[in-house]
Amino acid sequence: MFEFEIKKECKYTHARTGVLHTPHGDIQTPVFMPVGTQATVKGVLQRDLKEIGSQIILSNTYHLYLRPGHELIREAGGLHSFMNWDKPILTDSGGFQVFSLEGMRTVDDDGVTFQSHLNGSKHRFTPEFTMEVEEALGADIAMCFDQCTTAGTSYEESVKAMERTHEWARRCKEAHKRQDQALFGIVQGNMYADLRMESAKAISAMDFPGIAIGGLSVGEEKDVMYEMLDVMYPYITREKPHYLMGVGSPDCLVEGVARGIDMFDCVLPTRLGRNSCALTSQGRLTVRNAQYAHDFSPLDPECDCYTCRNFTRAYLRHLIKAEEMLAPMLLSLHNIYHLHRIMSRIREAIDQDCYPEFLREFRQSGWYCC
Amino acid sequence: MFEFEIKKECKYTHARTGVLHTPHGDIQTPVFMPVGTQATVKGVLQRDLKEIGSQIILSNTYHLYLRPGHELIREAGGLHSFMNWDKPILTDSGGFQVFSLEGMRTVDDDGVTFQSHLNGSKHRFTPEFTMEVEEALGADIAMCFDQCTTAGTSYEESVKAMERTHEWARRCKEAHKRQDQALFGIVQGNMYADLRMESAKAISAMDFPGIAIGGLSVGEEKDVMYEMLDVMYPYITREKPHYLMGVGSPDCLVEGVARGIDMFDCVLPTRLGRNSCALTSQGRLTVRNAQYAHDFSPLDPECDCYTCRNFTRAYLRHLIKAEEMLAPMLLSLHNIYHLHRIMSRIREAIDQDCYPEFLREFRQSGWYCC
Repeated sequence: MFEFEIKKECKYTHARTGVLHTPHGDIQTPVFMPVGTQATVKGVLQRDLKEIGSQIILSNTYHLYLRPGHELIREAGGLHSFMNWDKPILTDSGGFQVFSLEGMRTVDDDGVTFQSHLNGSKHRFTPEFTMEVEEALGADIAMCFDQCTTAGTSYEESVKAMERTHEWARRCKEAHKRQDQALFGIVQGNMYADLRMESAKAISAMDFPGIAIGGLSVGEEKDVMYEMLDVMYPYITREKPHYLMGVGSPDCLVEGVARGIDMFDCVLPTRLGRNSCALTSQGRLTVRNAQYAHDFSPLDPECDCYTCRNFTRAYLRHLIKAEEMLAPMLLSLHNIYHLHRIMSRIREAIDQDCYPEFLREFRQSGWYCC
Repeated sequence: MFEFEIKKECKYTHARTGVLHTPHGDIQTPVFMPVGTQATVKGVLQRDLKEIGSQIILSNTYHLYLRPGHELIREAGGLHSFMNWDKPILTDSGGFQVFSLEGMRTVDDDGVTFQSHLNGSKHRFTPEFTMEVEEALGADIAMCFDQCTTAGTSYEESVKAMERTHEWARRCKEAHKRQDQALFGIVQGNMYADLRMESAKAISAMDFPGIAIGGLSVGEEKDVMYEMLDVMYPYITREKPHYLMGVGSPDCLVEGVARGIDMFDCVLPTRLGRNSCALTSQGRLTVRNAQYAHDFSPLDPECDCYTCRNFTRAYLRHLIKAEEMLAPMLLSLHNIYHLHRIMSRIREAIDQDCYPEFLREFRQSGWYCC
């Protein structure tokens, strides 16, 4: 029901293409997963998401647990049915969100007690309870409950969080029962090379069907992120899909793939879309700027998405100034498509044995800008 | 280039079907026109508008003049090109909007001076200037600049506004030059039967290619609106298309058609959509209500729109509570489709010689609720 096949490996980098078989269909990797935090990818109809090539989406356990509640989603027949998305879904465990509630949560070895950002009500997540919630949501891929730390956390604190993450991974694995759902383990260890190696070994040893890298893109420089990926690589089971959590800028996608990553997710394309910003083959474009008022060219002349085929920068800028919903709708559609297009170019380059050349050219082009 | 053919007339009411030929295609009448105030029908992609059967949309001269400015739209090649809508468009003249700026405008016989609702800047609309703006926008149908009055305006004031409207109609006709744009006259006269008759005669005598009824649905009871339509009917050229401005609730559509109306426009479906309300075959449905939290049926079981085919009330309610953009998007799509479906049922009933029966059944059903 859940299987990962590696199709092609680059001879000079760790890049590879593969197919991830899931109960809701196959995923061609490397893949970018748009984020549908509250059971909707903001501003994009489900059919349009499919049309632009989304193979799998991510949704957030923390948000769905609070609203509308996992029991309602269970009653609806699971998240696929609730939001009418018949392709694969991945749910995070709520770990990252809960640890982001600075000052509103207390951690102990058994779990985390936190206050809802919606109404201040008190809740508790443990590894066992998040498994119950994720099983109710019924995604194809569930994530272990982990403790994420931000860049700058001390070595001592990072060790503690990492060890907790390993123990919680063990408990999640024990508690997880659904046969039609794959549970991925998460590597932590902050920006400490020895901890990252240790964590990669520990999580790999637990034989999860997939291995995620958590706790990167949490405030550190990108070079540090790449260094951590390099350091961990030898200790992560090669045959398993590798998922770099919360990362999705164009440069990180191509650099991540070169370091053996198969899956990515990020709110970037929709968040930028709501902030009147477009990802293009020339780099970022702030459509709100006055210089585009009379610009009747498309957002990105190299793009063939619905937005670029039909609308001009001048029109999009007008929609932004007039605060019309159509602006984030059209920009989000374009931005997600842009990242999918990068991924399909990456897959093509790997399959054609020219990822190093692709990487070199990409680094020199506007596409690389994040 | 612009021609109106009456296809079928009801024997017992004034209902009729027809075809309005325009430079951007034919319109089957009676027709409902969704409103795209700022060159976008709020929350609906242009291709989706087409898919749900929108034949023509309306846009607002006042808004587009202020932002992005008619000169920019002229530069873009007109409104069709600017917003990428290749079907017919109708623009109002700004008259209604300007007169809604209570306390921010002064009227004289030559025109209206007003302050922008955006930044308080001063502007002046005259019949000649609005023709210039509407010609720059380049819609298939332009409206004369008129003076609209609200329900409760005195007889004396109403006479004055009506006479001004007639004089301005004459000036608009004289100023209007575009051969590929039809200019419609507007009947005023508030709720005074004798003024409505006089205005209907005066506007009909000017031989515009279409005749609009303005100044209804401005606070009066619906019975009064219907009475005014009945009173005017004999004096409005039968062969011309009749457009009832700013009216679009289901009951008004079927009653208006019975009184000889061919065209309607209203912000109702999109405004309700943004206020978590759905028009259904059972009447209005406030999707936000707690009673729908566990309701896994579609908005309207009789509807086959994208929203109803794919999503449940429970999911839509969740989106509303979570303040997700997808809620107004899906509700607006459904609501516009609902009104288009009423219009196509109306056309079918007229063509099949059974409009009186249709009207009777409709009045007794949930569909009639507004």
